[in-house]
Amino acid sequence: MSRPALTSIEFDRALPGDSVRPLRWRNDALELLDQRRLPGDVKWVALDSAPAVAEAIHAMVVRGAPAIGIAAAYGVVLAAARAWTLAGEEWRRVIAADLDRLRGARPTAVNLAWALDHMEALFPGLQGNPGPSLLAAARALHAADIDGNRRMGQLGADLIEGGGVLTHCNAGSLATGGYGTALGVIRAAWSRQCIDAVYACETRPWLQGARLTTWELLQDGIPVTLLADSAAAPLLRAGRARWVIVGADRIAANGDVANKIGTYGLAVQARHHGARLMVVAPISSLDRHTDCGANIPIEQRSADELRRSGGEIMIPAEAAIWNPVFDITPAELVDVLVTEAGVLHSPDRAGISRLLKGA
Amino acid sequence: MSRPALTSIEFDRALPGDSVRPLRWRNDALELLDQRRLPGDVKWVALDSAPAVAEAIHAMVVRGAPAIGIAAAYGVVLAAARAWTLAGEEWRRVIAADLDRLRGARPTAVNLAWALDHMEALFPGLQGNPGPSLLAAARALHAADIDGNRRMGQLGADLIEGGGVLTHCNAGSLATGGYGTALGVIRAAWSRQCIDAVYACETRPWLQGARLTTWELLQDGIPVTLLADSAAAPLLRAGRARWVIVGADRIAANGDVANKIGTYGLAVQARHHGARLMVVAPISSLDRHTDCGANIPIEQRSADELRRSGGEIMIPAEAAIWNPVFDITPAELVDVLVTEAGVLHSPDRAGISRLLKGA
Repeated sequence: MSRPALTSIEFDRALPGDSVRPLRWRNDALELLDQRRLPGDVKWVALDSAPAVAEAIHAMVVRGAPAIGIAAAYGVVLAAARAWTLAGEEWRRVIAADLDRLRGARPTAVNLAWALDHMEALFPGLQGNPGPSLLAAARALHAADIDGNRRMGQLGADLIEGGGVLTHCNAGSLATGGYGTALGVIRAAWSRQCIDAVYACETRPWLQGARLTTWELLQDGIPVTLLADSAAAPLLRAGRARWVIVGADRIAANGDVANKIGTYGLAVQARHHGARLMVVAPISSLDRHTDCGANIPIEQRSADELRRSGGEIMIPAEAAIWNPVFDITPAELVDVLVTEAGVLHSPDRAGISRLLKGA
Repeated sequence: MSRPALTSIEFDRALPGDSVRPLRWRNDALELLDQRRLPGDVKWVALDSAPAVAEAIHAMVVRGAPAIGIAAAYGVVLAAARAWTLAGEEWRRVIAADLDRLRGARPTAVNLAWALDHMEALFPGLQGNPGPSLLAAARALHAADIDGNRRMGQLGADLIEGGGVLTHCNAGSLATGGYGTALGVIRAAWSRQCIDAVYACETRPWLQGARLTTWELLQDGIPVTLLADSAAAPLLRAGRARWVIVGADRIAANGDVANKIGTYGLAVQARHHGARLMVVAPISSLDRHTDCGANIPIEQRSADELRRSGGEIMIPAEAAIWNPVFDITPAELVDVLVTEAGVLHSPDRAGISRLLKGA
């Protein structure tokens, strides 16, 4: 498979139609665009240690499965720099605690573990100060993510024949190294003029769709219409969206998809209304070690995410709250899986296995 | 059908297990519990004119189809008092403008028009000052609503055989004269110990479920678990709720149900997961003049309801917003309709017609 290579200069900078980046390496630190504050404030925060990166991932300064993988890879660079300063040639012993903190930052997305495994696999071959080599590896991983997203954008757009599309959460530039997975397909389809409307669910409780997807698409001049999550059903019934296009936090070996809470409901709605479901995710989201969706850990986040609304406490303190922030969509409800290694229609165990072997 | 009559003293006062009332007549004025401020502030506002009542209905100081019908009936009392003061025996000419304002306050719930028609039908028979007779009629309508809700509570609870139930929006005491429709069934089922868990969707954008249903149930000691609207699908998949129980703003002659945005999606989810959908609504919600759901006007409310979250503007101003606040559930997805005149399984045109004739 031939892919156009990205130069090291361009990959973390704005391009026409692709102007948003959630993270960058500057002045020996990882800088994150603080996604808790978007769209009101566009603020970068600089992190100079792996524990700070782990905490930023946990607190959702950066979120989105591929983006947290890349952030963790840069976190390994920071961990290695500290370990080399403290212990010299013994750095591999000292770095372990930092890697554990990064690995435990969030449970559902597999890209976090994937990126850490990828970086750790380099450790045995390193000589002397590991910093420069690991930084080069993290930057390569970041560049490859954007490269893969652009490829997925083209592959996904090839499948769309017109009409509107609906997306959920934010599987965009902000959730990846740049360009996005689901929003990469939407960017590519919009630039080809093969879609005429983009709808975004607001995505309670964290409002990724309302706060991030609208902001990101508008940065690139793509008009977007926001709706309450529960308005997706009548939207689909009216035929206003022919595709539901989402990302993934983890895809099990049988093709079951863990993604933002609400994805499973949209999958049921899409099937009921004759719309199609496209899941767009890099190979790093495929987890060969997880047999099926039931084995994917579903993160439960704080009740405060539902209790508060814009800072105000809206809900009686005595009310119990169930706040799973991901759900599982069974493979049989997925019409097509788009990866950088190719497109899989009606994904199943055999197809996932072929994708993993070919990648 | 024999129904236990309510005394005029008890109907608008708190009772054990039924302690919430959204409106009351005091000192020649309609007092409304301001539902925009719940649960943080429990404040009553007094309204002494029909335009003030119309504005309060539009602004959702009071909401819920039966409650706005009753509020409008009291609004007619205020309008008649003013008209009598201004025009004496000519009051019927003067009152028309106030009735129009009340009728136009909100479009989707048919109970508003039903209550106004009910009050207007009394006009020809009135002699002298219409105030006392109309007040008695409004109070009777209010009492009959609570009476009907208690009966629906028993009829609905008869159908439930255990497990958890899921409700949406607030079809409770706060949405009716008192006791509630969907929450009346839940109150009755809870008191019989035939349900073991109550789940409430938060109900974006106005958060009726999060703010009102949780508060109301907790007032009566019924534990409730809140979830994001989009978490209903995995809840149903897990079998944690066997019934979805909702109210209705209007039921067309063919059995199609207009209710809070999100109801239709829950209906699709319930059918997909083998849970059942119970719609609980008084006969006054049946609209013999509306042939089917497609003919029910769906209110679109301000984009600000999605743009703001707890007072903060969260969404880019350039994002378009689609904010239909009701949706239509086709009759074929309704398993049972519970009214005060009886229970209708698999509602259809013939069944609705029978209910209307029997009521």
